[in-house]
Amino acid sequence: MRLVLQYDGSEFHGWQRQSDLRTIQAVVEDTLATIVGEPTIVHASGRTDAGVHALGQVAHFETTSRLPAETVKRAMNARLPHDVAVARAFESDTEFHARFSAIRKTYCYQFHIGDYEHPFRRRYYLHQWRALDLAAMRAAASQLVGTHDFKSFAAQAVDREDTVRTLYALRVLRIRDGVRVFATGSGFLQHMVRALAGLLLKIGRHKLDIQDAGRILAAKDRREAPSALPAHGLFLWKVDYVLRRFGVDSESSGP
Amino acid sequence: MRLVLQYDGSEFHGWQRQSDLRTIQAVVEDTLATIVGEPTIVHASGRTDAGVHALGQVAHFETTSRLPAETVKRAMNARLPHDVAVARAFESDTEFHARFSAIRKTYCYQFHIGDYEHPFRRRYYLHQWRALDLAAMRAAASQLVGTHDFKSFAAQAVDREDTVRTLYALRVLRIRDGVRVFATGSGFLQHMVRALAGLLLKIGRHKLDIQDAGRILAAKDRREAPSALPAHGLFLWKVDYVLRRFGVDSESSGP
Repeated sequence: MRLVLQYDGSEFHGWQRQSDLRTIQAVVEDTLATIVGEPTIVHASGRTDAGVHALGQVAHFETTSRLPAETVKRAMNARLPHDVAVARAFESDTEFHARFSAIRKTYCYQFHIGDYEHPFRRRYYLHQWRALDLAAMRAAASQLVGTHDFKSFAAQAVDREDTVRTLYALRVLRIRDGVRVFATGSGFLQHMVRALAGLLLKIGRHKLDIQDAGRILAAKDRREAPSALPAHGLFLWKVDYVLRRFGVDSESSGP
Repeated sequence: MRLVLQYDGSEFHGWQRQSDLRTIQAVVEDTLATIVGEPTIVHASGRTDAGVHALGQVAHFETTSRLPAETVKRAMNARLPHDVAVARAFESDTEFHARFSAIRKTYCYQFHIGDYEHPFRRRYYLHQWRALDLAAMRAAASQLVGTHDFKSFAAQAVDREDTVRTLYALRVLRIRDGVRVFATGSGFLQHMVRALAGLLLKIGRHKLDIQDAGRILAAKDRREAPSALPAHGLFLWKVDYVLRRFGVDSESSGP
């Protein structure tokens, strides 16, 4: 079965189950076990870090239970804590894998701009006192799109990992009192979106030049890039799949 | 000095200072004291209950400090916890009183409608599974507008209080995935907006008839009205003043 999950990451230690810590995987798996009547492993499209939110996380699980998807959705929402919900549930082919079948993911990083931190934005936006230069941010973003070695934007732990990824789009949108950065890619290294958003923020604040984007990318060195921004401004927005083999051309989990 | 305050009421025991409890008045007064250098009492337009939010609470205080309003605002926002903020600050005539000079207040009660409770709405909306009949709610609301004895909608504690109030408007608005009820009045009894919203909700769900609104109002008996709704869906939206004597025709604190 396939689930689209939404969660407020504020009070979770990320997706992945860890003993004694409150994680989304643990909460979802434990709730599901009481419904399908057997211990069940839930695989997500990817692990979100502590504090990161999701509007369109996708997960799947296998079960011997014959409960219809709609019943599972309703039963889970009745039992899950208030900061995580099943937005949609579908029966799915056993070939479907939330992580390996994904073709694209989109993350969103949110900035709130105002002369004070708004009490109703603080949990989901990074606060900025001054307007950002969106034209500069967009010019810099265009240097980062494409297939590159994103080692400069990876968490330091991944030294031996393949750090080549394809960034299909990096969009900078003005919203009512802030800015959203949308990153769409084949996959992302840990902290990569927050590091890209951190770079665009410095450029939007004129702390770095537009050309620094290409220079930092080419350096392939984590020490060249600005630090990753805090988790609370980041949302896993949607995950795209090609489901042709399931009779659907493509499907997205987004809001 | 006059302040427009915004707060997320979730983790406060309401406005009014109470020993050993976290209240907005205590947090604001204690922060202000460190800035103006003397203990200072802050008077609000009214006390909000535990869990109720504010976008446009108005408060005033007197001080011997000569700090400009903009400096006080910035210093307070730098020191206040993240769930309360000073949206605006003004020097004000000593005749101004946040409570006694107020001529109108507007509250908003928010419903989120969807087949599951949305993790990002749960703190600020009351969740409803099914659509509400807005036409019925509006017809009922029109029976409640005007100057009436609102005893049926008052908390039980107020037996000896004058329970006559003027409700200038009671509006029901559709929003993207929910409904907002705006109540504008000369003043409100404790729990009155939440009790009015509770009545409109029952009518919107066809649990009560439109005519029940007038009947319950006329009964002047708390036991006739549906219970007050939970605090987390309620916002003090704005407070209006006539400031003609200060050289301004009128001013509102709203968002």
